[in-house]
Amino acid sequence: MTLPTPRPWDLATEQAARAHLDTLTKPPGSLGKIEHLAAWWSAARGTCPPAPPARARLCTFAGDHGVTAEGVSPYPSAVTAQMVANFLAGGAAVNVFARHHDVEVEVIDVGVASPLEGAVSTAAARFVPARVRAGTGNMVREPAMTREEALAALQVGVDAARRAVADGVDLLAAGEMGIGNTTSAAAILSASAGMPGKLTAGRGTGVDDAGLQRKIVAIDAALALHQPDRFDGIAILCAVGGLEIAAIAGLCLGGASLGVPVVLDGFISTAGGLLAQTLDRSVTPWMLVAHKSGENAHWAMSRYLGKEPLHELDLRLGEGTGAVIAIDSVRLAAKVMREMATFSSAAVSGRS
Amino acid sequence: MTLPTPRPWDLATEQAARAHLDTLTKPPGSLGKIEHLAAWWSAARGTCPPAPPARARLCTFAGDHGVTAEGVSPYPSAVTAQMVANFLAGGAAVNVFARHHDVEVEVIDVGVASPLEGAVSTAAARFVPARVRAGTGNMVREPAMTREEALAALQVGVDAARRAVADGVDLLAAGEMGIGNTTSAAAILSASAGMPGKLTAGRGTGVDDAGLQRKIVAIDAALALHQPDRFDGIAILCAVGGLEIAAIAGLCLGGASLGVPVVLDGFISTAGGLLAQTLDRSVTPWMLVAHKSGENAHWAMSRYLGKEPLHELDLRLGEGTGAVIAIDSVRLAAKVMREMATFSSAAVSGRS
Repeated sequence: MTLPTPRPWDLATEQAARAHLDTLTKPPGSLGKIEHLAAWWSAARGTCPPAPPARARLCTFAGDHGVTAEGVSPYPSAVTAQMVANFLAGGAAVNVFARHHDVEVEVIDVGVASPLEGAVSTAAARFVPARVRAGTGNMVREPAMTREEALAALQVGVDAARRAVADGVDLLAAGEMGIGNTTSAAAILSASAGMPGKLTAGRGTGVDDAGLQRKIVAIDAALALHQPDRFDGIAILCAVGGLEIAAIAGLCLGGASLGVPVVLDGFISTAGGLLAQTLDRSVTPWMLVAHKSGENAHWAMSRYLGKEPLHELDLRLGEGTGAVIAIDSVRLAAKVMREMATFSSAAVSGRS
Repeated sequence: MTLPTPRPWDLATEQAARAHLDTLTKPPGSLGKIEHLAAWWSAARGTCPPAPPARARLCTFAGDHGVTAEGVSPYPSAVTAQMVANFLAGGAAVNVFARHHDVEVEVIDVGVASPLEGAVSTAAARFVPARVRAGTGNMVREPAMTREEALAALQVGVDAARRAVADGVDLLAAGEMGIGNTTSAAAILSASAGMPGKLTAGRGTGVDDAGLQRKIVAIDAALALHQPDRFDGIAILCAVGGLEIAAIAGLCLGGASLGVPVVLDGFISTAGGLLAQTLDRSVTPWMLVAHKSGENAHWAMSRYLGKEPLHELDLRLGEGTGAVIAIDSVRLAAKVMREMATFSSAAVSGRS
């Protein structure tokens, strides 16, 4: 498998967009992050002013984690499959968010451990069976996955990007579901940035003090056991990764290779973006961090990725909830570019 | 004039909403500020789960400021009237935001200094002529307004709330336009909290260092001249207020008296909320701060008001732009309450 190569980023259009923003009837920079978003979307589309996204799709990848055997989550692994069923039935938070903001949802089984009997596409979400393996190995005792499995899971994400683009999607987003996956995401940050588990582990879905301590011990033990090279994204995936996290990295690379940017949801999705960056740093401008998660180390992870999260609502659910809000912000930013009057067109006086 | 009395806040429904949120298929508290918003809206509506707002209206109050003579803004006062025309033509940022989020806009002239020839209601915004006075006096040399003018401007806001409720509006928002009004808002915070201008003045629409220094000097000089009692909201308005800021305070009191909460936009609107609180502290729960403005002292002002701003996008434009985004968040929060499955209805396992 050869990973797809991101397209070059259109810096000239980004600069043109910033110049255009300063002609609009508002003090320069006064729309804050919405202006940065407008410039980013202009560059991604390679045109100024850009049209709003014609079609936006959230890909929510699901996978289980062997490390749950270490007691790192208050919820049993069975919840991953149960929540996939909830997504397809339309009763999860991400469904409410997606309906409200008119975003289509695809749920991809990359590595759920339990059977998903009767899982079929619904109006609430399209279901894609693409299971590489029934959950990862327990990183504390064995590799999370083999090299072949890592590549196959990456390919699931690349395929999701290609399928979306074939459907006319021009804005992608990554979300996830997987009991135990904040431990994997934290371990990816630890492996990438050389940070001990104490700095990267957080409360996830709400572990108590003892559970948090078990997460820290598990992360440090796994990295001591596998010692992945921090410049080798595949090695990190094999050591401590998640199948859904690998797929998110693939989605980023696949999207960027087709000129479609990817909105990363929260802590776990950003870990996928971090791995994509490790695999090919030219993917970086194509990714947007949707929001600053309430999870402890998400801010540090975003900084390490070189990104400023867009929203800040203390969300820490995952699924793609924050990404859906950010998709709507991209639409708003595009409309600012196209619909606002300029100082000259509106006959408004400029600065003295 | 007797100011309207806020209705009692329905704390029992707020608590019922928090309990309901914990039955939904997500870890407790994992939707962060959206959960607080859901509980707030439930209490405001007095029912759990609440319907989304049936009709939301942004009232953007416009007024000029005599303190512009002190060189506190890089833009001339004429821009206030020019921007009112821009609002009615639909070319301003707030129009783009309001169209995107389906929020109706009313533009109310409480105190614009220049003639507004041909200002009429359009599809973009309804125009309401209610000018109390053609701009405030220069606070550094004279009172900003008389007591009668302050009461009349408050009444403009109360009337806007009553008109909205008569139209079936169940969620109000306050925005503003007025060159020089960050100086007035900062002076209101200074007067209310006993803070020197150095701590409350900011760059507003983008004054340079010398302009910022002039703002600080103007605020301190005005407070030294008038010395308003910090427990007397009318005295503060007379000394350093704005006509549009008085109207925003009136909107808050009027809305709360009719059981309709008010979303405050940014720095200037929050100053209006602060005055409403000074006039009647029982209004406090009925107000929501839409976002943390990029303006320097907005965070301190929100803390003083006892509020945590909802969004954080570095907006510092005013007009009501941030409030419109927050209105849409209220809709989303209401849908979370009504549409999400519970752990039992979705057969999802709970915490171990």
